[in-house]
Amino acid sequence: MHAIRHQISAQTLTSAAFAPFGDVIEVGDASRQFSINEGFATRFHDLAHIDVLDQGGKPILNIFRAVPRALPMQLRVMERHPLGSQAFVPLSQRPYLVVVAPASSHLESAHIQCFLAQAGQGVNYAKGTWHHPLIAIGSTSDFLVIDRGGTPEDRNLDEVNVLDGNYWIDLDDIRTWESTQVIDLNGRA
Amino acid sequence: MHAIRHQISAQTLTSAAFAPFGDVIEVGDASRQFSINEGFATRFHDLAHIDVLDQGGKPILNIFRAVPRALPMQLRVMERHPLGSQAFVPLSQRPYLVVVAPASSHLESAHIQCFLAQAGQGVNYAKGTWHHPLIAIGSTSDFLVIDRGGTPEDRNLDEVNVLDGNYWIDLDDIRTWESTQVIDLNGRA
Repeated sequence: MHAIRHQISAQTLTSAAFAPFGDVIEVGDASRQFSINEGFATRFHDLAHIDVLDQGGKPILNIFRAVPRALPMQLRVMERHPLGSQAFVPLSQRPYLVVVAPASSHLESAHIQCFLAQAGQGVNYAKGTWHHPLIAIGSTSDFLVIDRGGTPEDRNLDEVNVLDGNYWIDLDDIRTWESTQVIDLNGRA
Repeated sequence: MHAIRHQISAQTLTSAAFAPFGDVIEVGDASRQFSINEGFATRFHDLAHIDVLDQGGKPILNIFRAVPRALPMQLRVMERHPLGSQAFVPLSQRPYLVVVAPASSHLESAHIQCFLAQAGQGVNYAKGTWHHPLIAIGSTSDFLVIDRGGTPEDRNLDEVNVLDGNYWIDLDDIRTWESTQVIDLNGRA
């Protein structure tokens, strides 16, 4: 007997929808915005809860270069970082997929959600949030990553196999976001 | 009598040339690079010395949106952050200018240097390094900024006027980097 195939569709990424999992890093919230540098810049201030100091941890900056995944894609593995948050900010002006489940002692696959992040949107996974490794789409994409630096003895990575179901992620119409993306790039000031 | 006009030309930004001022944040150093995510990504690890914890400080993430400067440009002000490092990573696939002088109790204008950062290069100013506010060129540019969050009572900003000379920065041939930039964008995988 075949397992039922569960399709997880990509939702629009907003701060409100993503709040159970962490922060969306983007311009937009006027309450966090002020003018600096004699008017030559706008500062969008303190956009994520960087939580990396547990057990002697420190903030580190890294670049991840991700090759694109083929869609639809079956979920096989999820991970979490119990000692710190982890932020991803796209450097390549490309959309990407974010697959998450709430922090809990055991992953519940039925609670997995998928978001389509646009080129101008980063995400910060709160400490312990279950997430899939990076899912670049369309072409190779770079991300700035801000996470916790520690020692090899720290246990800051749990990986689990997704065994309790047959979960797939997809985009309803990949051509829709490709054409949107071209318009965004051309329209950029 | 007119003051002598000092022209500061933009140098190529390399880790070695920038070492007196901080870090260049970029892919390239093979010793910091390893494969992750079952081969779907490469991690370029711990690319900058994030130094923001003095006096109860914490790391914060921000986005700066900078409007372009007209060139040539006279230097009128420099600043430093005595309590923490400050990193800028371009999000807009645009080059920009970096103007710095070594950390010291008083700015020495004769020691100011200028670097042309490419779209794939971020910079991290070491604590106390004198620097000019963001210099976007050509069009409005966004940067992810990682610096120190503290309290309003912290004294983490010194600003000085450049009074001891008539310093200007320029690019030798602005058309050269504009055409280079177009090629880089089109050639991107």
